[in-house]
Amino acid sequence: MSPQLQDFLQQAAGRVEAALQRALAGTVPGAETLSAAMRYAALGPGKRLRPALVYASARTLRGDTFDPAACDAAAAALECIHAYSLVHDDLPAMDDDDLRRGRPTCHIEFDQASAILAGDALQTRAFELLLAGDAGSELKLRLLTELAGAAGVSGMVAGQAIDLAAVDRSLDLPQLEAMHRLKTGALIRASARIGALLGGADETRLGAVSRYAEAIGLAFQVQDDILDVTVDTATLGKTQGADAARNKPTYVSLLGLDGAREKLEDLHRRALEALSQLDRDTDLLRQLADYVVRRSH
Amino acid sequence: MSPQLQDFLQQAAGRVEAALQRALAGTVPGAETLSAAMRYAALGPGKRLRPALVYASARTLRGDTFDPAACDAAAAALECIHAYSLVHDDLPAMDDDDLRRGRPTCHIEFDQASAILAGDALQTRAFELLLAGDAGSELKLRLLTELAGAAGVSGMVAGQAIDLAAVDRSLDLPQLEAMHRLKTGALIRASARIGALLGGADETRLGAVSRYAEAIGLAFQVQDDILDVTVDTATLGKTQGADAARNKPTYVSLLGLDGAREKLEDLHRRALEALSQLDRDTDLLRQLADYVVRRSH
Repeated sequence: MSPQLQDFLQQAAGRVEAALQRALAGTVPGAETLSAAMRYAALGPGKRLRPALVYASARTLRGDTFDPAACDAAAAALECIHAYSLVHDDLPAMDDDDLRRGRPTCHIEFDQASAILAGDALQTRAFELLLAGDAGSELKLRLLTELAGAAGVSGMVAGQAIDLAAVDRSLDLPQLEAMHRLKTGALIRASARIGALLGGADETRLGAVSRYAEAIGLAFQVQDDILDVTVDTATLGKTQGADAARNKPTYVSLLGLDGAREKLEDLHRRALEALSQLDRDTDLLRQLADYVVRRSH
Repeated sequence: MSPQLQDFLQQAAGRVEAALQRALAGTVPGAETLSAAMRYAALGPGKRLRPALVYASARTLRGDTFDPAACDAAAAALECIHAYSLVHDDLPAMDDDDLRRGRPTCHIEFDQASAILAGDALQTRAFELLLAGDAGSELKLRLLTELAGAAGVSGMVAGQAIDLAAVDRSLDLPQLEAMHRLKTGALIRASARIGALLGGADETRLGAVSRYAEAIGLAFQVQDDILDVTVDTATLGKTQGADAARNKPTYVSLLGLDGAREKLEDLHRRALEALSQLDRDTDLLRQLADYVVRRSH
Protein backbone atom coordinates (compact mmCIF):
# COMPACT_ATOMS: atom_id res chain seq x y z
CA MET A 1 0.00 0.00 0.00
CA SER A 2 1.34 3.45 -0.86
CA PRO A 3 2.03 5.83 2.06
CA GLN A 4 -0.52 8.16 0.50
CA LEU A 5 -3.30 5.56 0.60
CA GLN A 6 -2.27 4.37 4.05
CA ASP A 7 -2.49 7.95 5.27
CA PHE A 8 -5.89 8.41 3.63
CA LEU A 9 -7.30 5.18 5.06
CA GLN A 10 -6.04 6.05 8.54
CA GLN A 11 -7.62 9.48 8.38
CA ALA A 12 -10.90 8.07 7.10
CA ALA A 13 -10.93 5.40 9.82
CA GLY A 14 -10.11 8.00 12.48
CA ARG A 15 -12.91 10.27 11.31
CA VAL A 16 -15.56 7.56 11.12
CA GLU A 17 -14.58 6.12 14.48
CA ALA A 18 -14.92 9.54 16.09
CA ALA A 19 -18.32 9.93 14.42
CA LEU A 20 -19.40 6.49 15.62
CA GLN A 21 -18.16 7.26 19.14
CA ARG A 22 -20.38 10.34 19.16
CA ALA A 23 -23.33 8.52 17.59
CA LEU A 24 -23.20 5.61 20.03
CA ALA A 25 -22.24 7.46 23.21
CA GLY A 26 -25.60 7.81 24.91
CA THR A 27 -27.59 5.17 26.70
CA VAL A 28 -31.07 4.83 28.09
CA PRO A 29 -31.06 3.83 31.79
CA GLY A 30 -31.55 0.07 32.00
CA ALA A 31 -30.40 -0.50 28.41
CA GLU A 32 -26.67 -0.28 29.12
CA THR A 33 -25.97 -3.73 27.70
CA LEU A 34 -27.68 -2.82 24.43
CA SER A 35 -25.55 0.31 24.07
CA ALA A 36 -22.39 -1.59 24.96
CA ALA A 37 -23.20 -4.27 22.38
CA MET A 38 -23.80 -1.61 19.70
CA ARG A 39 -20.45 0.03 20.46
CA TYR A 40 -18.70 -3.33 20.53
CA ALA A 41 -20.12 -4.21 17.14
CA ALA A 42 -19.49 -0.90 15.41
CA LEU A 43 -16.25 0.25 17.04
CA GLY A 44 -14.19 -2.92 16.86
CA PRO A 45 -11.22 -3.15 14.54
CA GLY A 46 -12.33 -3.18 10.93
CA LYS A 47 -11.14 -2.21 7.49
CA ARG A 48 -13.68 0.62 7.27
CA LEU A 49 -13.86 0.06 3.54
CA ARG A 50 -17.33 1.55 3.17
CA PRO A 51 -16.48 4.80 5.00
CA ALA A 52 -13.23 4.99 3.00
CA LEU A 53 -15.26 4.77 -0.21
CA VAL A 54 -17.54 7.57 0.96
CA TYR A 55 -14.63 9.91 1.68
CA ALA A 56 -12.62 8.85 -1.39
CA SER A 57 -15.54 9.28 -3.80
CA ALA A 58 -16.48 12.65 -2.34
CA ARG A 59 -12.86 13.82 -2.48
CA THR A 60 -12.47 12.63 -6.04
CA LEU A 61 -15.58 14.45 -7.17
CA ARG A 62 -15.09 17.58 -5.11
CA GLY A 63 -11.36 18.07 -5.67
CA ASP A 64 -9.68 20.89 -3.73
CA THR A 65 -12.85 22.00 -1.98
CA PHE A 66 -13.41 18.55 -0.42
CA ASP A 67 -14.55 18.83 3.20
CA PRO A 68 -14.33 15.46 5.00
CA ALA A 69 -16.57 16.69 7.83
CA ALA A 70 -19.48 16.80 5.36
CA CYS A 71 -19.07 13.04 4.89
CA ASP A 72 -18.79 11.94 8.53
CA ALA A 73 -22.49 11.24 9.13
CA ALA A 74 -22.85 9.22 5.92
CA ALA A 75 -19.64 7.29 6.57
CA ALA A 76 -20.81 6.40 10.06
CA ALA A 77 -24.26 5.45 8.74
CA LEU A 78 -22.78 3.02 6.24
CA GLU A 79 -20.58 1.49 8.91
CA CYS A 80 -23.61 1.08 11.20
CA ILE A 81 -25.47 -0.84 8.46
CA HIS A 82 -22.39 -2.96 7.80
CA ALA A 83 -21.85 -3.66 11.51
CA TYR A 84 -25.51 -4.59 12.01
CA SER A 85 -25.35 -7.03 9.11
CA LEU A 86 -22.23 -8.71 10.54
CA VAL A 87 -23.80 -9.06 13.99
CA HIS A 88 -26.92 -10.70 12.59
CA ASP A 89 -24.97 -12.83 10.06
CA ASP A 90 -22.81 -14.24 12.86
CA LEU A 91 -25.80 -15.43 14.94
CA PRO A 92 -26.15 -19.18 15.58
CA ALA A 93 -29.31 -19.33 13.44
CA MET A 94 -27.38 -17.75 10.56
CA ASP A 95 -23.65 -18.35 9.91
CA ASP A 96 -22.93 -19.31 13.54
CA ASP A 97 -19.52 -17.63 13.77
CA ASP A 98 -17.64 -17.17 17.04
CA LEU A 99 -14.86 -14.97 15.75
CA ARG A 100 -15.01 -11.67 13.87
CA ARG A 101 -12.27 -9.11 13.34
CA GLY A 102 -10.07 -11.08 15.72
CA ARG A 103 -12.54 -10.89 18.61
CA PRO A 104 -15.48 -12.92 19.90
CA THR A 105 -18.59 -12.13 17.86
CA CYS A 106 -21.24 -9.91 19.47
CA HIS A 107 -23.52 -12.76 20.61
CA ILE A 108 -20.52 -14.54 22.19
CA GLU A 109 -19.27 -11.42 23.98
CA PHE A 110 -22.81 -10.51 25.09
CA ASP A 111 -25.72 -12.85 24.36
CA GLN A 112 -27.97 -13.60 21.40
CA ALA A 113 -30.80 -11.34 22.48
CA SER A 114 -28.44 -8.39 22.90
CA ALA A 115 -26.86 -9.12 19.53
CA ILE A 116 -30.25 -9.21 17.77
CA LEU A 117 -31.29 -5.93 19.40
CA ALA A 118 -27.91 -4.26 18.85
CA GLY A 119 -28.16 -5.09 15.15
CA ASP A 120 -31.72 -3.78 15.01
CA ALA A 121 -30.76 -0.53 16.72
CA LEU A 122 -27.63 -0.06 14.60
CA GLN A 123 -29.81 -0.20 11.51
CA THR A 124 -32.11 2.51 12.88
CA ARG A 125 -29.07 4.58 13.96
CA ALA A 126 -27.82 4.58 10.38
CA PHE A 127 -30.98 6.33 9.22
CA GLU A 128 -30.85 8.70 12.20
CA LEU A 129 -27.27 9.64 11.33
CA LEU A 130 -28.17 10.56 7.76
CA LEU A 131 -31.25 12.43 8.97
CA ALA A 132 -29.17 14.45 11.43
CA GLY A 133 -26.40 15.19 8.91
CA ASP A 134 -26.04 18.66 7.48
CA ALA A 135 -26.76 17.95 3.82
CA GLY A 136 -29.61 19.91 2.25
CA SER A 137 -33.08 18.37 2.32
CA GLU A 138 -33.17 17.07 -1.24
CA LEU A 139 -29.65 15.61 -1.02
CA LYS A 140 -30.46 14.08 2.35
CA LEU A 141 -33.53 12.34 0.95
CA ARG A 142 -31.45 11.08 -1.97
CA LEU A 143 -28.79 9.67 0.39
CA LEU A 144 -31.44 8.02 2.56
CA THR A 145 -33.01 6.44 -0.52
CA GLU A 146 -29.62 5.11 -1.65
CA LEU A 147 -28.96 3.65 1.79
CA ALA A 148 -32.38 2.05 2.25
CA GLY A 149 -32.38 0.61 -1.27
CA ALA A 150 -28.96 -0.98 -0.75
CA ALA A 151 -29.67 -2.31 2.74
CA GLY A 152 -33.09 -3.86 2.37
CA VAL A 153 -35.05 -6.54 0.64
CA SER A 154 -33.82 -5.50 -2.81
CA GLY A 155 -30.21 -5.38 -1.60
CA MET A 156 -28.11 -6.66 1.25
CA VAL A 157 -30.77 -8.65 3.12
CA ALA A 158 -31.88 -10.40 -0.07
CA GLY A 159 -28.25 -11.36 -0.68
CA GLN A 160 -27.96 -12.78 2.80
CA ALA A 161 -31.18 -14.77 2.29
CA ILE A 162 -29.89 -16.21 -1.00
CA ASP A 163 -26.57 -17.02 0.68
CA LEU A 164 -28.30 -18.90 3.50
CA ALA A 165 -30.50 -20.81 1.07
CA ALA A 166 -27.33 -21.82 -0.82
CA VAL A 167 -25.73 -23.82 2.01
CA ASP A 168 -25.32 -27.40 0.80
CA ARG A 169 -26.78 -26.47 -2.58
CA SER A 170 -24.94 -25.61 -5.72
CA LEU A 171 -25.04 -22.13 -7.16
CA ASP A 172 -23.60 -21.59 -10.60
CA LEU A 173 -21.33 -18.64 -11.28
CA PRO A 174 -24.06 -16.18 -12.36
CA GLN A 175 -26.09 -17.09 -9.25
CA LEU A 176 -23.05 -16.69 -7.00
CA GLU A 177 -22.33 -13.32 -8.56
CA ALA A 178 -25.95 -12.19 -8.24
CA MET A 179 -25.84 -13.16 -4.56
CA HIS A 180 -22.64 -11.21 -3.87
CA ARG A 181 -23.87 -8.19 -5.84
CA LEU A 182 -26.67 -8.01 -3.28
CA LYS A 183 -25.04 -9.27 -0.10
CA THR A 184 -21.92 -7.08 -0.08
CA GLY A 185 -21.96 -5.33 -3.46
CA ALA A 186 -25.06 -3.23 -2.89
CA LEU A 187 -23.71 -1.51 0.23
CA ILE A 188 -20.24 -0.99 -1.27
CA ARG A 189 -21.88 0.53 -4.34
CA ALA A 190 -24.08 2.72 -2.15
CA SER A 191 -21.01 3.89 -0.20
CA ALA A 192 -19.31 5.11 -3.36
CA ARG A 193 -22.53 6.62 -4.73
CA ILE A 194 -23.30 8.42 -1.48
CA GLY A 195 -19.76 9.80 -1.42
CA ALA A 196 -20.11 10.90 -5.05
CA LEU A 197 -23.46 12.57 -4.34
CA LEU A 198 -21.91 14.38 -1.38
CA GLY A 199 -19.20 15.42 -3.81
CA GLY A 200 -21.79 16.94 -6.12
CA ALA A 201 -21.73 14.27 -8.84
CA ASP A 202 -24.07 14.58 -11.81
CA GLU A 203 -25.69 11.42 -13.20
CA THR A 204 -22.88 10.71 -15.69
CA ARG A 205 -20.16 10.85 -13.05
CA LEU A 206 -22.40 8.93 -10.65
CA GLY A 207 -22.65 6.21 -13.29
CA ALA A 208 -18.87 5.90 -13.59
CA VAL A 209 -18.45 5.77 -9.82
CA SER A 210 -21.18 3.10 -9.64
CA ARG A 211 -19.47 0.90 -12.25
CA TYR A 212 -16.16 1.30 -10.40
CA ALA A 213 -17.77 0.35 -7.10
CA GLU A 214 -19.65 -2.62 -8.56
CA ALA A 215 -16.35 -4.01 -9.84
CA ILE A 216 -14.43 -3.55 -6.60
CA GLY A 217 -17.39 -4.81 -4.58
CA LEU A 218 -17.24 -8.13 -6.42
CA ALA A 219 -13.42 -8.07 -6.38
CA PHE A 220 -13.52 -7.68 -2.61
CA GLN A 221 -15.61 -10.84 -2.38
CA VAL A 222 -13.42 -12.82 -4.77
CA GLN A 223 -10.36 -11.85 -2.73
CA ASP A 224 -12.28 -12.85 0.44
CA ASP A 225 -12.85 -16.29 -1.04
CA ILE A 226 -9.17 -16.58 -2.01
CA LEU A 227 -8.02 -15.47 1.46
CA ASP A 228 -10.46 -17.92 3.05
CA VAL A 229 -8.43 -20.84 1.65
CA THR A 230 -4.91 -19.34 1.63
CA VAL A 231 -4.54 -17.44 4.89
CA ASP A 232 -4.63 -18.74 8.47
CA THR A 233 -7.30 -17.82 11.02
CA ALA A 234 -5.05 -15.51 13.09
CA THR A 235 -4.18 -13.33 10.08
CA LEU A 236 -7.75 -13.37 8.81
CA GLY A 237 -9.33 -12.39 12.13
CA LYS A 238 -12.20 -14.79 11.41
CA THR A 239 -12.36 -18.54 11.11
CA GLN A 240 -10.25 -19.74 8.18
CA GLY A 241 -11.97 -22.12 5.77
CA ALA A 242 -15.34 -21.33 7.32
CA ASP A 243 -17.23 -20.97 4.04
CA ALA A 244 -15.75 -24.15 2.59
CA ALA A 245 -16.58 -26.03 5.82
CA ARG A 246 -20.23 -24.97 5.50
CA ASN A 247 -20.33 -26.20 1.92
CA LYS A 248 -21.00 -22.69 0.72
CA PRO A 249 -20.20 -22.11 -2.92
CA THR A 250 -17.29 -19.68 -3.38
CA TYR A 251 -15.39 -18.29 -6.36
CA VAL A 252 -12.59 -20.71 -5.48
CA SER A 253 -14.88 -23.74 -5.29
CA LEU A 254 -16.47 -22.83 -8.64
CA LEU A 255 -13.42 -21.54 -10.54
CA GLY A 256 -10.47 -23.04 -8.70
CA LEU A 257 -7.78 -20.85 -7.13
CA ASP A 258 -6.24 -19.82 -10.46
CA GLY A 259 -9.63 -19.12 -11.99
CA ALA A 260 -10.59 -16.98 -9.00
CA ARG A 261 -7.34 -15.02 -9.37
CA GLU A 262 -8.10 -14.41 -13.04
CA LYS A 263 -11.58 -13.25 -12.12
CA LEU A 264 -10.05 -10.86 -9.60
CA GLU A 265 -7.73 -9.37 -12.25
CA ASP A 266 -10.64 -8.97 -14.63
CA LEU A 267 -12.69 -7.10 -12.03
CA HIS A 268 -9.66 -4.95 -11.21
CA ARG A 269 -9.41 -4.00 -14.90
CA ARG A 270 -13.12 -3.19 -15.01
CA ALA A 271 -12.78 -0.89 -12.00
CA LEU A 272 -9.91 1.01 -13.62
CA GLU A 273 -11.82 1.22 -16.90
CA ALA A 274 -14.74 2.86 -15.10
CA LEU A 275 -12.36 5.37 -13.52
CA SER A 276 -10.94 6.24 -16.94
CA GLN A 277 -14.41 7.56 -17.79
CA LEU A 278 -14.39 9.97 -14.88
CA ASP A 279 -13.05 13.48 -15.67
CA ARG A 280 -11.40 13.87 -12.31
CA ASP A 281 -8.09 12.99 -10.65
CA THR A 282 -8.89 9.34 -9.91
CA ASP A 283 -5.56 8.35 -8.39
CA LEU A 284 -7.00 7.82 -4.92
CA LEU A 285 -9.85 5.58 -6.16
CA ARG A 286 -7.35 3.66 -8.30
CA GLN A 287 -5.13 3.05 -5.28
CA LEU A 288 -8.16 1.93 -3.30
CA ALA A 289 -9.01 -0.59 -6.04
CA ASP A 290 -5.40 -1.85 -5.98
CA TYR A 291 -5.65 -2.30 -2.23
CA VAL A 292 -8.94 -4.23 -2.45
CA VAL A 293 -7.50 -6.82 -4.85
CA ARG A 294 -4.10 -7.10 -3.15
CA ARG A 295 -5.04 -7.03 0.52
CA SER A 296 -3.74 -9.96 2.58
CA HIS A 297 -6.46 -10.01 5.27
CA MET B 1 -67.44 -0.48 19.80
CA SER B 2 -69.63 2.04 18.00
CA PRO B 3 -70.57 1.25 14.37
CA GLN B 4 -68.79 4.49 13.43
CA LEU B 5 -65.49 3.38 15.00
CA GLN B 6 -65.86 -0.14 13.67
CA ASP B 7 -66.32 1.28 10.20
CA PHE B 8 -63.33 3.57 10.61
CA LEU B 9 -61.06 0.76 11.90
CA GLN B 10 -62.13 -1.51 9.05
CA GLN B 11 -61.38 1.15 6.47
CA ALA B 12 -58.01 1.93 8.05
CA ALA B 13 -57.10 -1.76 8.18
CA GLY B 14 -58.20 -2.23 4.57
CA ARG B 15 -56.12 0.71 3.39
CA VAL B 16 -52.97 -0.29 5.24
CA GLU B 17 -53.27 -3.90 4.16
CA ALA B 18 -53.54 -2.82 0.54
CA ALA B 19 -50.51 -0.57 1.01
CA LEU B 20 -48.56 -3.41 2.64
CA GLN B 21 -49.56 -5.79 -0.16
CA ARG B 22 -48.12 -3.33 -2.67
CA ALA B 23 -45.01 -2.67 -0.58
CA LEU B 24 -44.23 -6.35 -0.05
CA ALA B 25 -45.27 -7.72 -3.44
CA GLY B 26 -41.91 -7.99 -5.18
CA THR B 27 -39.21 -10.55 -4.62
CA VAL B 28 -35.59 -11.00 -5.67
CA PRO B 29 -35.00 -14.37 -7.41
CA GLY B 30 -33.65 -16.80 -4.82
CA ALA B 31 -34.99 -14.78 -1.88
CA GLU B 32 -38.59 -16.00 -2.14
CA THR B 33 -38.64 -17.33 1.43
CA LEU B 34 -37.51 -13.95 2.76
CA SER B 35 -40.31 -12.17 0.90
CA ALA B 36 -42.86 -14.75 2.04
CA ALA B 37 -41.72 -14.37 5.66
CA MET B 38 -42.04 -10.58 5.42
CA ARG B 39 -45.57 -10.86 4.04
CA TYR B 40 -46.51 -13.45 6.66
CA ALA B 41 -45.26 -11.18 9.44
CA ALA B 42 -46.81 -7.94 8.20
CA LEU B 43 -50.03 -9.14 6.61
CA GLY B 44 -51.34 -11.51 9.27
CA PRO B 45 -54.40 -10.62 11.30
CA GLY B 46 -53.69 -7.72 13.62
CA LYS B 47 -55.42 -4.85 15.32
CA ARG B 48 -53.61 -2.30 13.12
CA LEU B 49 -53.71 0.14 16.01
CA ARG B 50 -50.72 2.15 14.80
CA PRO B 51 -52.10 2.67 11.28
CA ALA B 52 -55.50 3.53 12.81
CA LEU B 53 -53.81 6.20 14.89
CA VAL B 54 -52.11 7.66 11.83
CA TYR B 55 -55.40 7.94 9.93
CA ALA B 56 -57.40 9.08 12.96
CA SER B 57 -54.94 11.80 13.95
CA ALA B 58 -54.63 13.08 10.41
CA ARG B 59 -58.41 13.11 9.99
CA THR B 60 -58.89 14.87 13.31
CA LEU B 61 -56.42 17.57 12.41
CA ARG B 62 -57.39 17.93 8.76
CA GLY B 63 -61.16 17.80 9.17
CA ASP B 64 -63.24 17.82 5.98
CA THR B 65 -60.24 17.94 3.66
CA PHE B 66 -58.76 14.71 5.09
CA ASP B 67 -57.34 12.49 2.36
CA PRO B 68 -56.59 8.98 3.66
CA ALA B 69 -54.42 8.20 0.63
CA ALA B 70 -51.88 10.74 1.89
CA CYS B 71 -51.47 8.59 5.03
CA ASP B 72 -51.11 5.17 3.43
CA ALA B 73 -47.31 5.11 3.16
CA ALA B 74 -46.83 6.26 6.75
CA ALA B 75 -49.43 3.84 8.08
CA ALA B 76 -47.74 0.96 6.26
CA ALA B 77 -44.32 2.11 7.49
CA LEU B 78 -45.46 2.06 11.11
CA GLU B 79 -46.97 -1.38 10.68
CA CYS B 80 -43.69 -2.63 9.14
CA ILE B 81 -41.74 -1.42 12.19
CA HIS B 82 -44.31 -2.98 14.51
CA ALA B 83 -44.30 -6.28 12.61
CA TYR B 84 -40.49 -6.42 12.57
CA SER B 85 -40.38 -5.87 16.33
CA LEU B 86 -42.87 -8.68 16.94
CA VAL B 87 -40.93 -11.11 14.71
CA HIS B 88 -37.68 -10.41 16.56
CA ASP B 89 -39.33 -10.35 20.01
CA ASP B 90 -40.80 -13.80 19.40
CA LEU B 91 -37.43 -15.41 18.58
CA PRO B 92 -36.18 -18.19 20.88
CA ALA B 93 -33.30 -15.99 22.09
CA MET B 94 -35.83 -13.30 23.04
CA ASP B 95 -39.36 -14.05 24.32
CA ASP B 96 -39.47 -17.50 22.67
CA ASP B 97 -43.13 -17.37 21.64
CA ASP B 98 -44.71 -19.91 19.30
CA LEU B 99 -48.04 -18.20 18.83
CA ARG B 100 -48.85 -14.68 17.63
CA ARG B 101 -52.12 -13.26 16.39
CA GLY B 102 -53.56 -16.78 16.50
CA ARG B 103 -50.94 -18.24 14.14
CA PRO B 104 -47.48 -19.79 14.47
CA THR B 105 -44.87 -17.09 14.93
CA CYS B 106 -42.65 -16.28 11.96
CA HIS B 107 -39.67 -18.41 13.06
CA ILE B 108 -42.02 -21.39 13.63
CA GLU B 109 -43.75 -20.99 10.26
CA PHE B 110 -40.43 -20.43 8.47
CA ASP B 111 -37.15 -20.72 10.39
CA GLN B 112 -35.10 -18.52 12.69
CA ALA B 113 -32.75 -17.22 10.01
CA SER B 114 -35.67 -16.18 7.79
CA ALA B 115 -37.38 -14.54 10.76
CA ILE B 116 -34.26 -12.53 11.65
CA LEU B 117 -33.83 -11.40 8.03
CA ALA B 118 -37.53 -10.69 7.52
CA GLY B 119 -37.48 -8.45 10.59
CA ASP B 120 -34.36 -6.69 9.34
CA ALA B 121 -35.85 -6.11 5.90
CA LEU B 122 -39.21 -4.95 7.29
CA GLN B 123 -37.39 -2.27 9.23
CA THR B 124 -35.64 -1.03 6.10
CA ARG B 125 -38.93 -1.20 4.17
CA ALA B 126 -40.51 1.15 6.68
CA PHE B 127 -37.97 3.84 5.85
CA GLU B 128 -38.32 3.14 2.13
CA LEU B 129 -42.09 3.56 2.38
CA LEU B 130 -41.80 6.98 4.00
CA LEU B 131 -39.12 7.99 1.50
CA ALA B 132 -41.34 7.00 -1.42
CA GLY B 133 -44.43 8.68 0.01
CA ASP B 134 -45.73 11.86 -1.54
CA ALA B 135 -45.24 14.26 1.34
CA GLY B 136 -43.09 17.33 0.65
CA SER B 137 -39.36 17.09 1.39
CA GLU B 138 -39.35 18.89 4.72
CA LEU B 139 -42.40 17.00 6.00
CA LYS B 140 -40.93 13.73 4.78
CA LEU B 141 -37.70 14.34 6.71
CA ARG B 142 -39.73 15.21 9.79
CA LEU B 143 -41.74 11.98 9.52
CA LEU B 144 -38.57 9.93 9.01
CA THR B 145 -37.02 11.54 12.07
CA GLU B 146 -40.11 10.76 14.16
CA LEU B 147 -40.08 7.15 13.00
CA ALA B 148 -36.35 6.57 13.53
CA GLY B 149 -36.39 8.23 16.94
CA ALA B 150 -39.28 6.08 18.10
CA ALA B 151 -37.93 2.83 16.69
CA GLY B 152 -34.29 2.88 17.71
CA VAL B 153 -31.96 2.90 20.66
CA SER B 154 -33.76 5.82 22.31
CA GLY B 155 -37.13 4.18 21.79
CA MET B 156 -38.60 0.79 21.03
CA VAL B 157 -35.38 -1.24 20.97
CA ALA B 158 -34.23 0.24 24.29
CA GLY B 159 -37.59 -0.74 25.77
CA GLN B 160 -37.20 -4.27 24.52
CA ALA B 161 -33.67 -4.43 26.01
CA ILE B 162 -34.95 -3.23 29.39
CA ASP B 163 -37.79 -5.73 29.20
CA LEU B 164 -35.40 -8.63 28.54
CA ALA B 165 -33.10 -7.54 31.34
CA ALA B 166 -36.12 -7.51 33.69
CA VAL B 167 -36.94 -11.22 33.42
CA ASP B 168 -36.64 -12.73 36.90
CA ARG B 169 -35.80 -9.32 38.33
CA SER B 170 -38.09 -6.87 40.00
CA LEU B 171 -38.95 -3.57 38.38
CA ASP B 172 -40.82 -1.02 40.42
CA LEU B 173 -43.76 0.85 38.93
CA PRO B 174 -41.78 3.83 37.56
CA GLN B 175 -39.29 1.43 35.95
CA LEU B 176 -42.08 -0.68 34.45
CA GLU B 177 -43.71 2.46 33.10
CA ALA B 178 -40.42 3.75 31.67
CA MET B 179 -39.93 0.41 29.93
CA HIS B 180 -43.39 0.41 28.37
CA ARG B 181 -43.11 4.06 27.32
CA LEU B 182 -40.17 2.93 25.20
CA LYS B 183 -41.13 -0.58 24.18
CA THR B 184 -44.63 0.08 22.88
CA GLY B 185 -45.34 3.69 23.85
CA ALA B 186 -42.76 5.32 21.58
CA LEU B 187 -44.14 3.82 18.38
CA ILE B 188 -47.77 4.45 19.34
CA ARG B 189 -46.86 8.05 20.11
CA ALA B 190 -44.99 8.34 16.80
CA SER B 191 -48.03 6.96 14.96
CA ALA B 192 -50.27 9.66 16.35
CA ARG B 193 -47.66 12.38 15.82
CA ILE B 194 -46.98 11.31 12.25
CA GLY B 195 -50.70 11.35 11.54
CA ALA B 196 -51.00 14.78 13.14
CA LEU B 197 -48.06 16.08 11.09
CA LEU B 198 -49.66 14.71 7.93
CA GLY B 199 -52.78 16.54 9.07
CA GLY B 200 -50.85 19.80 9.23
CA ALA B 201 -50.58 20.08 13.03
CA ASP B 202 -48.69 22.99 14.56
CA GLU B 203 -46.55 22.38 17.66
CA THR B 204 -49.37 23.11 20.13
CA ARG B 205 -51.77 20.64 18.53
CA LEU B 206 -48.92 18.17 18.10
CA GLY B 207 -48.32 18.42 21.85
CA ALA B 208 -51.96 17.60 22.65
CA VAL B 209 -51.93 14.63 20.27
CA SER B 210 -48.68 13.42 21.85
CA ARG B 211 -50.09 13.53 25.37
CA TYR B 212 -53.20 11.69 24.18
CA ALA B 213 -51.07 9.01 22.51
CA GLU B 214 -48.73 8.63 25.49
CA ALA B 215 -51.74 7.93 27.70
CA ILE B 216 -53.38 5.42 25.38
CA GLY B 217 -50.00 3.79 24.68
CA LEU B 218 -49.60 2.99 28.35
CA ALA B 219 -53.29 2.13 28.67
CA PHE B 220 -52.89 -0.37 25.86
CA GLN B 221 -50.13 -2.06 27.82
CA VAL B 222 -52.05 -2.08 31.09
CA GLN B 223 -55.02 -3.67 29.30
CA ASP B 224 -52.60 -6.18 27.73
CA ASP B 225 -51.42 -7.17 31.20
CA ILE B 226 -55.01 -7.47 32.43
CA LEU B 227 -56.02 -9.58 29.42
CA ASP B 228 -52.93 -11.75 29.92
CA VAL B 229 -54.38 -13.05 33.19
CA THR B 230 -58.12 -12.90 32.47
CA VAL B 231 -58.58 -14.17 28.92
CA ASP B 232 -57.82 -17.59 27.47
CA THR B 233 -55.19 -18.27 24.82
CA ALA B 234 -57.65 -18.82 21.97
CA THR B 235 -59.31 -15.43 22.47
CA LEU B 236 -55.97 -13.70 23.00
CA GLY B 237 -54.31 -15.15 19.89
CA LYS B 238 -51.09 -15.50 21.84
CA THR B 239 -50.11 -17.66 24.77
CA GLN B 240 -52.19 -16.75 27.83
CA GLY B 241 -50.22 -16.10 31.01
CA ALA B 242 -46.97 -15.95 29.06
CA ASP B 243 -45.59 -12.89 30.81
CA ALA B 244 -46.44 -14.18 34.27
CA ALA B 245 -44.87 -17.55 33.41
CA ARG B 246 -41.62 -15.80 32.47
CA ASN B 247 -41.61 -13.92 35.78
CA LYS B 248 -41.90 -10.65 33.93
CA PRO B 249 -43.19 -7.79 36.02
CA THR B 250 -46.61 -6.59 34.84
CA TYR B 251 -49.08 -3.95 35.97
CA VAL B 252 -51.14 -6.78 37.44
CA SER B 253 -48.21 -8.30 39.33
CA LEU B 254 -47.23 -4.90 40.74
CA LEU B 255 -50.67 -3.38 41.37
CA GLY B 256 -53.00 -6.38 41.53
CA LEU B 257 -55.94 -6.74 39.15
CA ASP B 258 -58.00 -4.00 40.77
CA GLY B 259 -55.01 -1.66 40.93
CA ALA B 260 -54.29 -2.27 37.26
CA ARG B 261 -57.91 -1.49 36.40
CA GLU B 262 -57.71 1.77 38.33
CA LYS B 263 -54.50 2.63 36.52
CA LEU B 264 -56.27 1.95 33.23
CA GLU B 265 -59.11 4.30 34.14
CA ASP B 266 -56.64 6.99 35.13
CA LEU B 267 -54.82 6.73 31.80
CA HIS B 268 -58.16 6.81 29.98
CA ARG B 269 -59.00 10.07 31.79
CA ARG B 270 -55.60 11.53 30.88
CA ALA B 271 -56.13 10.69 27.21
CA LEU B 272 -59.52 12.44 27.18
CA GLU B 273 -58.06 15.43 29.02
CA ALA B 274 -55.42 15.81 26.32
CA LEU B 275 -58.13 15.72 23.67
CA SER B 276 -60.03 18.44 25.47
CA GLN B 277 -57.08 20.72 24.72
CA LEU B 278 -57.34 20.11 20.99
CA ASP B 279 -59.52 22.63 19.08
CA ARG B 280 -60.86 20.01 16.70
CA ASP B 281 -63.69 17.47 16.56
CA THR B 282 -62.02 14.80 18.66
CA ASP B 283 -64.85 12.30 18.72
CA LEU B 284 -62.98 9.71 16.64
CA LEU B 285 -59.84 9.85 18.82
CA ARG B 286 -62.05 9.62 21.92
CA GLN B 287 -63.73 6.52 20.58
CA LEU B 288 -60.35 5.04 19.78
CA ALA B 289 -59.23 5.63 23.38
CA ASP B 290 -62.42 3.98 24.64
CA TYR B 291 -61.70 0.98 22.43
CA VAL B 292 -58.11 0.66 23.67
CA VAL B 293 -59.15 0.45 27.32
CA ARG B 294 -62.21 -1.74 26.74
CA ARG B 295 -60.93 -4.19 24.13
CA SER B 296 -61.29 -7.87 25.05
CA HIS B 297 -58.35 -9.25 23.04
